[in-house]
Amino acid sequence: MALQRVVLASQSPRRKQLLEWAEIPFDIIVRNTDESYPPGLPTDVIPIHIARQKALAVKECSEYKMYKANATIVAADTVVVLDNVIIGKPKDREDAIDILSSLSGKKHLVITGVVILHEGENETAFADITEVWFHPVTTSEIAYYVDKYRPFDKAGAYAIQEYIGVTGIKRINGDFYNVMGLPVSRVLQALNKLG
Amino acid sequence: MALQRVVLASQSPRRKQLLEWAEIPFDIIVRNTDESYPPGLPTDVIPIHIARQKALAVKECSEYKMYKANATIVAADTVVVLDNVIIGKPKDREDAIDILSSLSGKKHLVITGVVILHEGENETAFADITEVWFHPVTTSEIAYYVDKYRPFDKAGAYAIQEYIGVTGIKRINGDFYNVMGLPVSRVLQALNKLG
Repeated sequence: MALQRVVLASQSPRRKQLLEWAEIPFDIIVRNTDESYPPGLPTDVIPIHIARQKALAVKECSEYKMYKANATIVAADTVVVLDNVIIGKPKDREDAIDILSSLSGKKHLVITGVVILHEGENETAFADITEVWFHPVTTSEIAYYVDKYRPFDKAGAYAIQEYIGVTGIKRINGDFYNVMGLPVSRVLQALNKLG
Repeated sequence: MALQRVVLASQSPRRKQLLEWAEIPFDIIVRNTDESYPPGLPTDVIPIHIARQKALAVKECSEYKMYKANATIVAADTVVVLDNVIIGKPKDREDAIDILSSLSGKKHLVITGVVILHEGENETAFADITEVWFHPVTTSEIAYYVDKYRPFDKAGAYAIQEYIGVTGIKRINGDFYNVMGLPVSRVLQALNKLG
């Protein structure tokens, strides 16, 4: 309600939808960034590090500078963590099937790092963690999902709002929208604090 | 995957969408039922009682009998419970604002009772409980939501996937889709057991 327009540094249709549902006005400016990270970072700091690279790449680009001086930039990166190991996006069909097989019947964490750059100077950064429990799912269900939905752009090889997420997830503890890619209620609170 | 078509005894567009996402084939047959319940029932038994009334009303109607002998019927009812008191659908605008004000900053429970009638004889019934924590939300945010989204058909006067749910809910513990109106992964497991 009566927020300044922000710049979303993400092409994810899910993040776009979440800002729309939360009625946060935004435009999208994205620059490709290296999604690597230094060794030794704690798992919850890694997505913040990657989100910061995304935000800084936008801050430095000419499209942003011509868009609106000092518009607030919102960047995010989501990772899946199983047994303290980061699971990225699947490389191919077999990798997606392997990843989902490893999540079957177990708890994993979904961590989204958020970096908000305000007036070119001030950074608000946080990581939001949601615990997710999968039912045991069969290899045939997994292969069916991977072939039909092709989750190759998704950390952990699934979307919670698609077939395997809807039928295979037993429960969560935390923010559902964080699993979709953006802890949008915390983002809104951070934006409201900036004024 | 390769399930028999079921009859969904609900007009809720959210329950319809969840069965579609889970790829459970269905047709809809609904009969109006009394949503009252006997005094003294535990809070988790009340939505099962109401769901059973919905399922039995469909089982007895001529549309169902002409549709397909012995098709499995899935019925559900969702209630919100705050401090062990059932909160129903709001009576009017003021009641919706009062309900959401009472949920602000607190934990409540969303309980969906599910009744599955199989081959006219066998009943599978369960209640699924999700804990939901609201951030403190302001009266102006609540009034804005109620006037724009008119949540008069919703237990607890909100939908988790609409403005006040997206911006106002801090976290949940349990099945997100249960809060939307149907614990669809448990429904699918129950249907798979029926074979």
